[in-house]
Amino acid sequence: MCLRGRSVPGIECACLPASPELDRLRVVLVRTRNPLNIGAAARAMSNFGFAHLWVVNPYEVAFREARSAVGGSAVLADAEEFNSVAEAVADCSLVVGTTALRHRELRHPLRRLEQGAPLVRRQLKSHRVALLFGSEKVGLSNEALSHCHWLMRIPTREEHGSMNLGQAVAVCLYELARDASAARASKEPVRVTATEADRITDLLVEALALSSYLRPQVASTREKVRRMVRRLNLRTEDAETWLGMLRQILWKIRRQAQS
Amino acid sequence: MCLRGRSVPGIECACLPASPELDRLRVVLVRTRNPLNIGAAARAMSNFGFAHLWVVNPYEVAFREARSAVGGSAVLADAEEFNSVAEAVADCSLVVGTTALRHRELRHPLRRLEQGAPLVRRQLKSHRVALLFGSEKVGLSNEALSHCHWLMRIPTREEHGSMNLGQAVAVCLYELARDASAARASKEPVRVTATEADRITDLLVEALALSSYLRPQVASTREKVRRMVRRLNLRTEDAETWLGMLRQILWKIRRQAQS
Repeated sequence: MCLRGRSVPGIECACLPASPELDRLRVVLVRTRNPLNIGAAARAMSNFGFAHLWVVNPYEVAFREARSAVGGSAVLADAEEFNSVAEAVADCSLVVGTTALRHRELRHPLRRLEQGAPLVRRQLKSHRVALLFGSEKVGLSNEALSHCHWLMRIPTREEHGSMNLGQAVAVCLYELARDASAARASKEPVRVTATEADRITDLLVEALALSSYLRPQVASTREKVRRMVRRLNLRTEDAETWLGMLRQILWKIRRQAQS
Repeated sequence: MCLRGRSVPGIECACLPASPELDRLRVVLVRTRNPLNIGAAARAMSNFGFAHLWVVNPYEVAFREARSAVGGSAVLADAEEFNSVAEAVADCSLVVGTTALRHRELRHPLRRLEQGAPLVRRQLKSHRVALLFGSEKVGLSNEALSHCHWLMRIPTREEHGSMNLGQAVAVCLYELARDASAARASKEPVRVTATEADRITDLLVEALALSSYLRPQVASTREKVRRMVRRLNLRTEDAETWLGMLRQILWKIRRQAQS
């Protein structure tokens, strides 16, 4: 029973307005094990008006079970499966990882949910954003984290263990969806997508490899460069110029090596 | 890993402070059917620092199952059982019911969660407050509602069904626990000074000149590169790495030119 359009003294409508902004969010579950959690994430997404659930390398049985559950939502039916985080976030300009901040050295800026959510909202006004949730046991891997611009954490009491995945998704989406108007209206420049950032990363890694700065076959160094490039938070209008500069430098290094 | 007491650049502690106020809240589950939901409510309470879980007429089997679950929290072990809502809320000055607002005529004032939560917080400064959650199927009965001062609703999209009980508890407790004041103070990473940015600009201009990308004697091209580097808005902690990369690339280009 929606009160929209009705006036009842002392009562206000609690509905969320439909929002094209929320439609730009991708909720990305990475290596989720428990079908109940996939279902719970989908249900919370329905509740708060988000549509795009993407799963990366789920345990196959879990994903199939979740999909076939009675009363499964449209969100779940439309969920898309990916083989890597890179593919899942390819069209997103902002990639935010969630973390319980345990057993991990932080290499990313970390924001509390209520501080990060307005930034995500602002980006959603014009760009696609991916919000990553890791597996129940170990969270996001370093490889998955290397695709993130920054991390977000629900402020819980450290001593009392990490949150249940389905509940964590619900809390994050609540914070993103509530009070849309409260998010400050601000014109932010257009930022590069993950794919564009990766093209820059690739060229830079190649230049650095040819200069003996790093060995590209070592995954962690490539991840480090990827994080550095992500943190630049490049504007789309600048990306082409940076690509051009790097291509030219690479051309010079290669040409000299041949001569 | 709690950051309390440690200083890490660009990172802030996301812990909730211990709070005697939160200790005055009673989370009251009325006629809950599913043991997983009782367990989920207890887990969310632990996460957000609430201690008192009261169950009214639970399905006995569900309550026993939830209590005996592996990894059950202290909250669950200490949960108290009551035969009526009246007994459960007897020592509370404020009783707030939660509702999905379906199939029910409203006889109470209704507040959105983010509007009701500050009122609950204020009351908790000096008084006990009960927050009631009804059964998964039908919510709170009219009898249970009659004990409530007002109702609270999580702002969800009406057309997409009601929330899962465990997720609803998590979202409500998050909103009650999050520290409004902490939300405003946000620590941004330290950015490079103009001098540091100029060192990067100089190296980049030199590399680009040697690669025939630009002619450094043309002032406007140097200015263009400087503006591009400024827009990167580099962090201090990253600047050294970028300088190192550029120096190495330059070394490579120069060395090849000599050989």
